Amino acid sequence: MASMEKVQSIIGAILADYESDRDIDRVESFHRPDKDVVIDIIEKLQRIVFPGYFRDKNYRMYSAKNNLSVLIEDTMINLTKQLTRVYQSTGEDAKTAQEKAEEVCMAFFAQIPQVRELVQTDLQAAYDGDPAATGMAEIIFAYPGLFAITVYRLAHILYTLKVPMLPRIMTEHAHSITGIDIHPGATIGKFFFIDHGTGIVIGETSVIGNNVKIYQGVTLGGLSTRGGQSLRGKRRHPTIEDNVTIYANAAILGGDTVIGADSVIGASAFITASIPPSTTVSLKNQELQMKSHN
Amino acid sequence: MASMEKVQSIIGAILADYESDRDIDRVESFHRPDKDVVIDIIEKLQRIVFPGYFRDKNYRMYSAKNNLSVLIEDTMINLTKQLTRVYQSTGEDAKTAQEKAEEVCMAFFAQIPQVRELVQTDLQAAYDGDPAATGMAEIIFAYPGLFAITVYRLAHILYTLKVPMLPRIMTEHAHSITGIDIHPGATIGKFFFIDHGTGIVIGETSVIGNNVKIYQGVTLGGLSTRGGQSLRGKRRHPTIEDNVTIYANAAILGGDTVIGADSVIGASAFITASIPPSTTVSLKNQELQMKSHN
Amino acid sequence: MASMEKVQSIIGAILADYESDRDIDRVESFHRPDKDVVIDIIEKLQRIVFPGYFRDKNYRMYSAKNNLSVLIEDTMINLTKQLTRVYQSTGEDAKTAQEKAEEVCMAFFAQIPQVRELVQTDLQAAYDGDPAATGMAEIIFAYPGLFAITVYRLAHILYTLKVPMLPRIMTEHAHSITGIDIHPGATIGKFFFIDHGTGIVIGETSVIGNNVKIYQGVTLGGLSTRGGQSLRGKRRHPTIEDNVTIYANAAILGGDTVIGADSVIGASAFITASIPPSTTVSLKNQELQMKSHN
Repeated sequence: MASMEKVQSIIGAILADYESDRDIDRVESFHRPDKDVVIDIIEKLQRIVFPGYFRDKNYRMYSAKNNLSVLIEDTMINLTKQLTRVYQSTGEDAKTAQEKAEEVCMAFFAQIPQVRELVQTDLQAAYDGDPAATGMAEIIFAYPGLFAITVYRLAHILYTLKVPMLPRIMTEHAHSITGIDIHPGATIGKFFFIDHGTGIVIGETSVIGNNVKIYQGVTLGGLSTRGGQSLRGKRRHPTIEDNVTIYANAAILGGDTVIGADSVIGASAFITASIPPSTTVSLKNQELQMKSHN
Repeated sequence: MASMEKVQSIIGAILADYESDRDIDRVESFHRPDKDVVIDIIEKLQRIVFPGYFRDKNYRMYSAKNNLSVLIEDTMINLTKQLTRVYQSTGEDAKTAQEKAEEVCMAFFAQIPQVRELVQTDLQAAYDGDPAATGMAEIIFAYPGLFAITVYRLAHILYTLKVPMLPRIMTEHAHSITGIDIHPGATIGKFFFIDHGTGIVIGETSVIGNNVKIYQGVTLGGLSTRGGQSLRGKRRHPTIEDNVTIYANAAILGGDTVIGADSVIGASAFITASIPPSTTVSLKNQELQMKSHN
Repeated sequence: MASMEKVQSIIGAILADYESDRDIDRVESFHRPDKDVVIDIIEKLQRIVFPGYFRDKNYRMYSAKNNLSVLIEDTMINLTKQLTRVYQSTGEDAKTAQEKAEEVCMAFFAQIPQVRELVQTDLQAAYDGDPAATGMAEIIFAYPGLFAITVYRLAHILYTLKVPMLPRIMTEHAHSITGIDIHPGATIGKFFFIDHGTGIVIGETSVIGNNVKIYQGVTLGGLSTRGGQSLRGKRRHPTIEDNVTIYANAAILGGDTVIGADSVIGASAFITASIPPSTTVSLKNQELQMKSHN
């Protein structure tokens, strides 16, 4: 290593920099959620949702039921701890934070059967919609869309329970794994199918009906975000009604934009106004220039 | 924690939900492949393909050759186990599954030298094609395109050996790491170069010649997937002949679409019909609206 | 397993293949950087930049300051080792490599306070620019854009210190996590905000001013890379002046292209020539074909 004085002086400069009292200078991490633990919770929840498909080597399998029971209880304990930290980091005292955390954790787990009901419809939609799918197990193991939707459905419950931070950490973890960015605030119906998925963005106030199918690169976004924080909480993203298919890289923007039921939006279409039901929208033949260079 | 009765009742409700006999309710995981082990196999295969670039801390290096020998044998054992599970999960009895697994595993490893031959051409294509590349080692360590292509080339062998599930788990793992979604069924020639890569989709029945170069966001896709499972096995994706370059976000769709040799497809072009050889296709000047707001 | 002879013969064929003396056949890995260690260094640097947000379980927390001090010194040691390997792999003798590594490592860490200054502006820009952001901690924990920018800012220092390989391994790691591909050679000002981010490509010679905001799928790229290695070092990517917003999937190409200050580039615009300051560019109404199928 370089001379000890040099090392000490550089370390000293960095430590001094932590005294600047900016947002990035908060050193006390005790009351913050632990991102690695949250990711571990997501993995455990995936095992709880699909009990026969993913295994935790930590749980020896004498009886599948006992094992799942232990896994669920363990995940409850971990989630309660993270929720407690989140409430403490947003200003609650230790006792109130702990009580809210326990209550919210129980409310969350009480809804797991409903989540599983929805995820089964998403699985079915993936199988029915993709000629390349060879079976249900392949979809559960391999399809990024099903993973992103599952994490969204779990995070959405925490979002509706008004939990700060955690829902977004969860969906951003799925975004990182899949390239699919579904905000936990979005509302999404049954039989939702995402194919390929990389580059998809579904904004916070989007509303999506049943049997909707979305391909890679599709944006359900806001028309302009120049308002920044002043737009918080306002409806900024579109409504997609039942049985709509949206092909690759289409962008549908704006809180007043409604895509009517049974419509099909062609690849790369750019849409900022409502489309009536049962309409097929496609780009007029794109003018291409062809030059032969024989 | 909340009251023990409450916890027990919620756990009970989830366990009861597992009795619903849907696809997601299979609790017995004994005969399923283990996704974490498959990912570990992919990492070991990467070490086998690039023996001097990635190291496994588990193997002490007295002699590189001994070490690689152990690594290959170890990977064979792991792959055979996963293949056995896959065959059991698709209905074979234990003995037949084991025999098929051993045979397929040997057939797979026998083709590793051919894979390495192809990957060396892909590496060369990346170096020749990218002005930002400073050397071969940088490409092997850092370029997502080379990683996605390597995993595809390995998975494609298993696909041609008719292995269920595993090939797709492998390419979807690469998709998750790189944003590049190459179906293991695609046919791809020598000197294949993917630059940047995020958002690329190459469908199951695509056929790609030699010296092809593809940029981020390119789709080689189907024209419509409304047929769902009825389209399985049919030719749905395009043919790209030798020496074609396809720039960012172009979409080429349909099983009858052929991009002739030596052609160049411009960024964002949307193509659903064949293009003759030696043709440069570009968007006619896109009409842009300009408003000054001085 | 299959018969021992068969196994040995296949292993022998692979070992023989390593003797082909191609780029992928270098077996001696002693002087190469270790990618896993580089990723671990990135994670430690993230803790150093955001000291209160990410914790390393390896460091027990008696005093945050002591702990951070140990973390910084540990990261210095690890980075010096990897730099030494990089210099050895590019031909330096052991002693020179070690000396260069120590010097560059100290120069790098001396700039950490400046990086933190810039990252605080990026954090502020994310909060101001995104109506969905509920607080600073959520952005630090969850936003892929901030992570990609932080890694870029760190890698850029190593790039300017002319370190081979490591800067690109670092930004490609962030690319893999986020889908955002920022070349470490790009020049980027203060208050840089990336929203959603998947599919973004920012080329090596791009120059970006202050207060710039970029959405998912945007390319700042080269006009053609047909020149391959002959273009190395030449200006190939655009200039984006202060206060410019570039919406989703726009592509801005070419080393002579300048987007003037205060301009707004609409979604999906394809731009290969300069745009004057204070100009809003949008696609003229895209011609869509609508068919009712009632």
